[in-house]
Amino acid sequence: MSIKRPIILVTNDDGVTAPGLHRLVEALPDEADIYVVAPDGPRSAQSSALTMTNPLRIHRHPEMEADGRSEHWMSVNGTPVDCVKLAVHTILPCQPDVCLAGINHGSNAGNSIIYSGTMGAVMETCTLGIPSVGYSLLDHSMQADFSKTIPLIKEITRKVIANGLPDHICLNVNFPADTDIHGVKVVAAAQSHWTDEYKEYTDPAGNKFYLITGTLINDNPGDDGTDLYWLPRNYATIVPVTPDQSRPDMITYIKDILSV
Amino acid sequence: MSIKRPIILVTNDDGVTAPGLHRLVEALPDEADIYVVAPDGPRSAQSSALTMTNPLRIHRHPEMEADGRSEHWMSVNGTPVDCVKLAVHTILPCQPDVCLAGINHGSNAGNSIIYSGTMGAVMETCTLGIPSVGYSLLDHSMQADFSKTIPLIKEITRKVIANGLPDHICLNVNFPADTDIHGVKVVAAAQSHWTDEYKEYTDPAGNKFYLITGTLINDNPGDDGTDLYWLPRNYATIVPVTPDQSRPDMITYIKDILSV
Repeated sequence: MSIKRPIILVTNDDGVTAPGLHRLVEALPDEADIYVVAPDGPRSAQSSALTMTNPLRIHRHPEMEADGRSEHWMSVNGTPVDCVKLAVHTILPCQPDVCLAGINHGSNAGNSIIYSGTMGAVMETCTLGIPSVGYSLLDHSMQADFSKTIPLIKEITRKVIANGLPDHICLNVNFPADTDIHGVKVVAAAQSHWTDEYKEYTDPAGNKFYLITGTLINDNPGDDGTDLYWLPRNYATIVPVTPDQSRPDMITYIKDILSV
Repeated sequence: MSIKRPIILVTNDDGVTAPGLHRLVEALPDEADIYVVAPDGPRSAQSSALTMTNPLRIHRHPEMEADGRSEHWMSVNGTPVDCVKLAVHTILPCQPDVCLAGINHGSNAGNSIIYSGTMGAVMETCTLGIPSVGYSLLDHSMQADFSKTIPLIKEITRKVIANGLPDHICLNVNFPADTDIHGVKVVAAAQSHWTDEYKEYTDPAGNKFYLITGTLINDNPGDDGTDLYWLPRNYATIVPVTPDQSRPDMITYIKDILSV
């Protein structure tokens, strides 16, 4: 009896050297063929952005490949979505069995999904019919401790490889930082918004410039059906999400108000 | 009786000099306060990407402001979402009554929504509770003829200002090119995917590089409830879309397959 080895595509948005990416790959089974195709540097908040006119180049990283495992490490001078598109179209021998992104250094909870490069990559492979999961730890530091997340990542990854995911559905998994994880909640993304988003500076020539900052506000802090409720209570959260933003249930209403 | 003048925020992803942006502003009512905050150059396929570390600068364009109207033109060295975030946070006197993006030079039909910088801006202002509409013409050319779209843009914009839009719902409007428009259909985005996405080149040093290309395939070409069905038949399409990608209806299923 031959048992097919799973092909796992891995990416992130913090870049190919980010510790979270390396911890994720170490957590994957030895009996998988692992292809890491990650940006050549930080690409946080790149959402589903594509590189349209600059040449994309693929750089191999044999120095990152662990002995005795089937690991193939590459970086691309593009966005996370460029990485997974190039991987599926050009690099991999066939469609992967699963795509994993992360472990992100920082939260992708609440409405952060829409900006996240990590989740951009996950949404992309989801549209290609590949079961896809994004993992994020609520700690931006490059010295973040991912150790408490590893058993759950192994378990979730194993079950997603075994069971697949429904069409057009992927998973956004967030872990609390610096704590024992009390459990796992499958919930909705909290409705939330950002405030105080820009800090104003004046350059030496007297011209103003702006850098993004801000605070994520949970619009319904008492709603225990959401990720932003459980993460501060030291639970990991799993949010089912979709790349399909069309809302056919609103067609009749919109026809009515536009009289078309 | 005083009648409040509507405040209209306008952006695009083709940049502040793109003819489609100028045609859109010309189509807006004289009795509105119009703020154009657009990227300083092409930012197609930037999705909901944010500029995280580079200083953002706002450049005024009085040379673009039409005489006798309340127009305020600015450009930003960032993405479409940077533009509308900065506009709402820093530039405008108060929240706008509506945000319009376009007229995009090229289609945003089917699953193009997820990559579109035009629709990224629209999704962003939608999350802020601002009625928001993206307009796109199926012609990438900078010499595209937008004239057939203008009466419909005036009508849709007027009705959206008058009626608003439901929470978390915005509109993706696409127009066929070089034709009389037979009518308007409010429909779903067609399920679709891209094939043959990269062209391989070899540089003078013998190294390979890749540029994005590809063809959008309609997964259900006979489905007359979708935009990709009606646009080739010379109808304009209006697709209700949402920035909220969470799918709470899948929670029970995901709990079950993950046994959590």
